[in-house]
Amino acid sequence: MAADAGQGGAGPLYGRVALIGLGLIASSMAHAMRAAGLCRHIAGHAPSAATRAVARELFCDSVHDTAAGAAAGADLVVLAVPVGAMGAVAAAIAPALTPGATVTDVGSVKQAVVAAVAPHVPPGVHFIPGHPIAGTEHSGPRSGFATLFRNRWWLLTPLPGTDPAALARLRALCEGMGANVDAMDPAHHDLVLAVTSHVPHLIAYTMVGVADDLRRVTDSEVIRYSAAGFRDFTRIAASDPVMWRDVFLTNKDATLDILGRFTEELFALQRAIRLGDGPHLHAYFTRTRAIRRGIIEAGQDTAAPDFGRAAAAAGGEGVPQAVALPGQRR
Amino acid sequence: MAADAGQGGAGPLYGRVALIGLGLIASSMAHAMRAAGLCRHIAGHAPSAATRAVARELFCDSVHDTAAGAAAGADLVVLAVPVGAMGAVAAAIAPALTPGATVTDVGSVKQAVVAAVAPHVPPGVHFIPGHPIAGTEHSGPRSGFATLFRNRWWLLTPLPGTDPAALARLRALCEGMGANVDAMDPAHHDLVLAVTSHVPHLIAYTMVGVADDLRRVTDSEVIRYSAAGFRDFTRIAASDPVMWRDVFLTNKDATLDILGRFTEELFALQRAIRLGDGPHLHAYFTRTRAIRRGIIEAGQDTAAPDFGRAAAAAGGEGVPQAVALPGQRR
Repeated sequence: MAADAGQGGAGPLYGRVALIGLGLIASSMAHAMRAAGLCRHIAGHAPSAATRAVARELFCDSVHDTAAGAAAGADLVVLAVPVGAMGAVAAAIAPALTPGATVTDVGSVKQAVVAAVAPHVPPGVHFIPGHPIAGTEHSGPRSGFATLFRNRWWLLTPLPGTDPAALARLRALCEGMGANVDAMDPAHHDLVLAVTSHVPHLIAYTMVGVADDLRRVTDSEVIRYSAAGFRDFTRIAASDPVMWRDVFLTNKDATLDILGRFTEELFALQRAIRLGDGPHLHAYFTRTRAIRRGIIEAGQDTAAPDFGRAAAAAGGEGVPQAVALPGQRR
Repeated sequence: MAADAGQGGAGPLYGRVALIGLGLIASSMAHAMRAAGLCRHIAGHAPSAATRAVARELFCDSVHDTAAGAAAGADLVVLAVPVGAMGAVAAAIAPALTPGATVTDVGSVKQAVVAAVAPHVPPGVHFIPGHPIAGTEHSGPRSGFATLFRNRWWLLTPLPGTDPAALARLRALCEGMGANVDAMDPAHHDLVLAVTSHVPHLIAYTMVGVADDLRRVTDSEVIRYSAAGFRDFTRIAASDPVMWRDVFLTNKDATLDILGRFTEELFALQRAIRLGDGPHLHAYFTRTRAIRRGIIEAGQDTAAPDFGRAAAAAGGEGVPQAVALPGQRR
């Protein structure tokens, strides 16, 4: 794929790439594109002067006071702002776009982005919405790293009539950064992400909020005893609040749909608890193990206990052994 | 503390320790006690012959076909079976217990264990319920490791009239395995754990069940795109089903109480999504970040992005850098 589209030693895929928004995703793209030699020049813009200064220092070849300034003359423009800001940014850059250029985005919702951005895209400019399924709980221009997309999926949701060559080139870029690429319909994307991301985040935020609110259990107790399960929820509940506000405001239908399913299932389990229905609970808790195995086999998570936290925290010390420890007496 | 109770070079705290149940917690205790020289002999029993064979090979000095056989002559008996099995095991070992011995347990629920076990404990035997706030999603006698309890909390819920010397000795054992010890009332324990563990597990199981059930999104899509947040839920939803069934059956009141709070908050957020109330969502998502910071500062989780999974998966390769990467061009 990459070779077909002009990579593989034949030089960069794009000349000038403009990153509009300079947070975790954009900064990771910059590091990854540079590491793989995928473009010749990385231009950037963010509203905050402090962010621009960091980007200038760490990963941008040129930094611009306006989005249009960054987009001018770009072969590829990447909209990497919260979903709620996409429309305004698209309107701002439209006059600067050159025919033949490609515009993509990295928003977590696709139908709303298409509705907000497409009307502003001038004739001759290719608009190909996208969404890298990658991220961490950290935000901002210092949080990016070149391997964020490695072995992660990058979804593209091309609109009817998309130019095949422009699509192949963008796909090659994503693959060049280490990602696997899938294409799907924007509506299906929004439903899939409601299940795998949006509702899980909402639930995590809710559980952390409940724990924080409960007067009979102190915050200090919640924090001390969080290793019993709760701490797994707090990671995603520490994600960027603006981004998540926009996700829920713009993927309302799919979120409410999946949330309805979640509530029904939760009520069924609540009823089983109330009635003391052990077999129901046991059967439910058994079948959910298979999905975990599938995720590990697909290389989308580690099999190490506790996500391998011990290794991360201790630099190798205290790493659990999956099998026998030596030096046993009988 | 440890020195007061006879440790610190003055020899083991206990002579014979009997582990009844040989899963993750018991096997980790065996490894940890042995590593720190906390006892002279580790006896074990589990109902399964296969489990006993593994324990004999990996961490027990003697393995017994009956719980009473393991408990006979023990200075400390640790009940490490699912909460629903505690009463039967206590009845089985009672005739073998010697005055002066201590019985503890590691169950995730305390009021129900006290009710099930206390009536069987003979006069002169000290019963001190306990609960190590530690574990992984793995189960069974091969899943244990010596550092599981290091820097984790071990809660003891001593009953009125507990012998101070027996309590100090048990506390020293927990500390000797690397844990911090707190004491609290069994009812408060059950409420705290409902928040930090039981309801989070139930919610995780539910979310994974919803994803597995949804016909419009395939399991393969759920697995591929799980890095968007969902995979964090699947770890705890892969925990031992029997243990968790028993937790919900025996900590019913506190679980339903916290679950009611959770549902109320979730409905409030759902309403905010339906009404498009951005400020409400933003405010909620902002305040949950503080708890995450508290957990990291308390040493109960790693600050590395994604729990440091990259380090666990790749043995160092691909580890995100929190700050600047070198070698930038301008």
